[in-house]
Amino acid sequence: MRFKIILRVLGLIVEVVSFFMLWPLVWAVLDRSHDVGAIFTSMIIGIALGVVLLLYGGNNASEDMRPKEALVTVGLSWLVVSAIGALPFWLSGSAPSFTDAFFESVSGFTTTGASILTNIEANPRGILFWRSLTHWLGGMGIIVLGLAILPFLGVGGRQLFHAEVPGPVPEKLTPRIHHTALLLWGVYVFLTILETLFLYFGGLSVFDALTHTFGTVATGGFSPLNGSVGQYNSVYVDVVITVFMFISGANFALHYRMLKKDFTAWWKDEEFRFYLYIVLGSIATISLVLLKDHIYSSISDALRYVSFQVVSIMTTTGFVTADFEQWPAYAQLLLILLMLIGGCAGSTGGGMKVVRLLILLKHLSIELKTMLHPRAHYAMRLNNNTVEKEIALSISAFFVLYFAVFVVSFLLLSLMGMDFISSVAAVAATLGNVGPGLGAVGPMDNYSALAAPAKWILSFCMLFGRLELYPMIALFLPDSWKR
Amino acid sequence: MRFKIILRVLGLIVEVVSFFMLWPLVWAVLDRSHDVGAIFTSMIIGIALGVVLLLYGGNNASEDMRPKEALVTVGLSWLVVSAIGALPFWLSGSAPSFTDAFFESVSGFTTTGASILTNIEANPRGILFWRSLTHWLGGMGIIVLGLAILPFLGVGGRQLFHAEVPGPVPEKLTPRIHHTALLLWGVYVFLTILETLFLYFGGLSVFDALTHTFGTVATGGFSPLNGSVGQYNSVYVDVVITVFMFISGANFALHYRMLKKDFTAWWKDEEFRFYLYIVLGSIATISLVLLKDHIYSSISDALRYVSFQVVSIMTTTGFVTADFEQWPAYAQLLLILLMLIGGCAGSTGGGMKVVRLLILLKHLSIELKTMLHPRAHYAMRLNNNTVEKEIALSISAFFVLYFAVFVVSFLLLSLMGMDFISSVAAVAATLGNVGPGLGAVGPMDNYSALAAPAKWILSFCMLFGRLELYPMIALFLPDSWKR
Repeated sequence: MRFKIILRVLGLIVEVVSFFMLWPLVWAVLDRSHDVGAIFTSMIIGIALGVVLLLYGGNNASEDMRPKEALVTVGLSWLVVSAIGALPFWLSGSAPSFTDAFFESVSGFTTTGASILTNIEANPRGILFWRSLTHWLGGMGIIVLGLAILPFLGVGGRQLFHAEVPGPVPEKLTPRIHHTALLLWGVYVFLTILETLFLYFGGLSVFDALTHTFGTVATGGFSPLNGSVGQYNSVYVDVVITVFMFISGANFALHYRMLKKDFTAWWKDEEFRFYLYIVLGSIATISLVLLKDHIYSSISDALRYVSFQVVSIMTTTGFVTADFEQWPAYAQLLLILLMLIGGCAGSTGGGMKVVRLLILLKHLSIELKTMLHPRAHYAMRLNNNTVEKEIALSISAFFVLYFAVFVVSFLLLSLMGMDFISSVAAVAATLGNVGPGLGAVGPMDNYSALAAPAKWILSFCMLFGRLELYPMIALFLPDSWKR
Repeated sequence: MRFKIILRVLGLIVEVVSFFMLWPLVWAVLDRSHDVGAIFTSMIIGIALGVVLLLYGGNNASEDMRPKEALVTVGLSWLVVSAIGALPFWLSGSAPSFTDAFFESVSGFTTTGASILTNIEANPRGILFWRSLTHWLGGMGIIVLGLAILPFLGVGGRQLFHAEVPGPVPEKLTPRIHHTALLLWGVYVFLTILETLFLYFGGLSVFDALTHTFGTVATGGFSPLNGSVGQYNSVYVDVVITVFMFISGANFALHYRMLKKDFTAWWKDEEFRFYLYIVLGSIATISLVLLKDHIYSSISDALRYVSFQVVSIMTTTGFVTADFEQWPAYAQLLLILLMLIGGCAGSTGGGMKVVRLLILLKHLSIELKTMLHPRAHYAMRLNNNTVEKEIALSISAFFVLYFAVFVVSFLLLSLMGMDFISSVAAVAATLGNVGPGLGAVGPMDNYSALAAPAKWILSFCMLFGRLELYPMIALFLPDSWKR
């Protein structure tokens, strides 16, 4: 373990994120609101911390990083950046304690969208803009952002990239990692501009269009409105956001190929097709159940609200236009499953990722065939490539690990006196980076009333989920810290 | 697929089980109660059906069985035997419909212990004895029983044995399968006699001692009393049953070695130690939580009730001496997890089996070490033997499949309008062969109020759980039925 290399990368990432506070600062200055000082102080603290880290860090850009160094760097970066990002909420008084501020910041960067704010609209626009901007920065990844902006991050870049963007089957857009990071951020910025324009021409203010776009393309879910997207009560806004949530939940490498005029890129991809089938199947069955139970009287209403909620939950965005706690148990159970599945690999969506489920199901089908014909040999294929046994083994380990983190977290929450449904749903909603759960943390509630230890546990659930477990687990293994 | 071989085995198993109805018939005749006719008729129907099957079946004992033939035979045997076993409940009027009778019979043979009887003590003793006897027959397995009693079942015996007693790491007691089956049934009968004596000398009647013993050693959970074991309110009875439940949840091959004076057999086995740790850890933490919440005022009371409930749930017996629905969420969540883990491989307990969890955790630890040191090579060892990668892969497939059956079942139940907790708990309790769940199917309720389709779904959950999925799945794969 070479700590100097870690400190150097950490310092650079902290600098990048701190400089982004300029943007909310501009809003605050324009509004002459009380949060100017808080945001400015936070930015100065962040820049100063970055400088200190860089002073202690090494300077050798040509050194390669070992896998465990990369994992620890990514885990630490997200912890430190979340702490810096919490300062504006804390110093401005928007969050009543540092615990709450940290929860809100982690929820932002991890694109979870779980909030401790009880009256969102009472906060100044600078704070609300920063809150939505954390989504945008975390959506494509702060390490990927660093790699895109700072080409001199060094040869270790590849290891860092794979620690932040694991994905079971790596996608190579270009041989150079700096170039890949730039392309991904390029597509991301393009989608951001596109949706902002759509929302602006739909009648939203620049501020509302930008913040809701950040929440959408990052699949985050923070809205500056108390009633989330539902408050607009506009079919146009619902449709635009549903479409962009769906796109943001798919692999950005495919979007890049679509922009390069390979118009079959989406359809040719097995994961994308499976993702589409799950979304359409869930919308169809939930709509039927809701129509049967007379929760919606017209098919168009049912489709509008069910599509929005299904896409929002499955992509782990967490925007809300209907109180799905009033829906029957079947709909709620299915939504919790969609939370756990999550978006596609290489998207900004959370959860376990569609491709992992796909490979597990293929593995299962091979096991069943082998059961009937023990002497035959079956190989797994994905997008016409053979998938090695080792990949199926790691994915099953990931699945078990995800389940283990889930179980440990909800046992801890239930020890603090949370009830059955609330603790299960809170863990599913934070580990999956969704935001709203059921029970005490349902779509019409928020997380403010939880005890402080519960907020810390859920903050870690969000980080575990966003980083797909391993970088966070590496922080807890003594072996990682050996020199 | 050679149907003649299947019909022959099926016929033999049906004959064996039908002849066991003589025993409840004796109770009914002694009591001169109204169920004499029902039990007698059921026995005649069973014997007649067996004869018909044997007439249509083949006669070539030297033929070997293919794996898929063995799986289908085992799946069909359990279905047919459950149907025959349902006749006494149906014909005597104890169950209001064939659906209810089939549910009760499946629940008996699979040693689940979920009941549709609302006033158990209102039933005649012949019926109650048959109900408990189904536990005993199903506990060690009806195919294993057939193999023990009928040495001429043929060479296919080995395939049949492994289809009914899968276990991820096969245990070979003796090279001859008939001999292995005899030894296992021998240990089983020995434990049965021992517990019956303990209970009899503790003051129970012969009838009560026998039926509760059947419920214990088979880890079934049917009691002829409305208040289950709790009705005795006796520390002695609680302790005896707790100890025998614990033993019955462990591998019977180990018990055989203990009886052969290898007194370290239990302790030397990794699965047994892990099983012990889980039981002790759960008892300790739940007791602490209950004492903290003042649900029990003395440590001895807490230990007595918590031990009983933990061992009963983990071994998937389902006897009850306390209403754990009144316990805090932590205890309930932990109990649901214990249901899913279940007993050891080679025991009469249900669930996913302790050894599968153990291998998954070892697999996980290897994945984590590989994450930090990608170039190192780690091998998995269990009881000083190397475990091949293929075994970890099949176990993870089993885990995913178990989860899939779980999810599909609770989605179907929720579609029928069952609430969230009840549907999750009902599936966990039946798939794990436990019996009592939470909510509408809690420890103080029963399954009588469920809709008929829900009873059929849960009946299949019990069969899926008891046969560890594959024989039942084989019945549903079109490939199995190809000639």
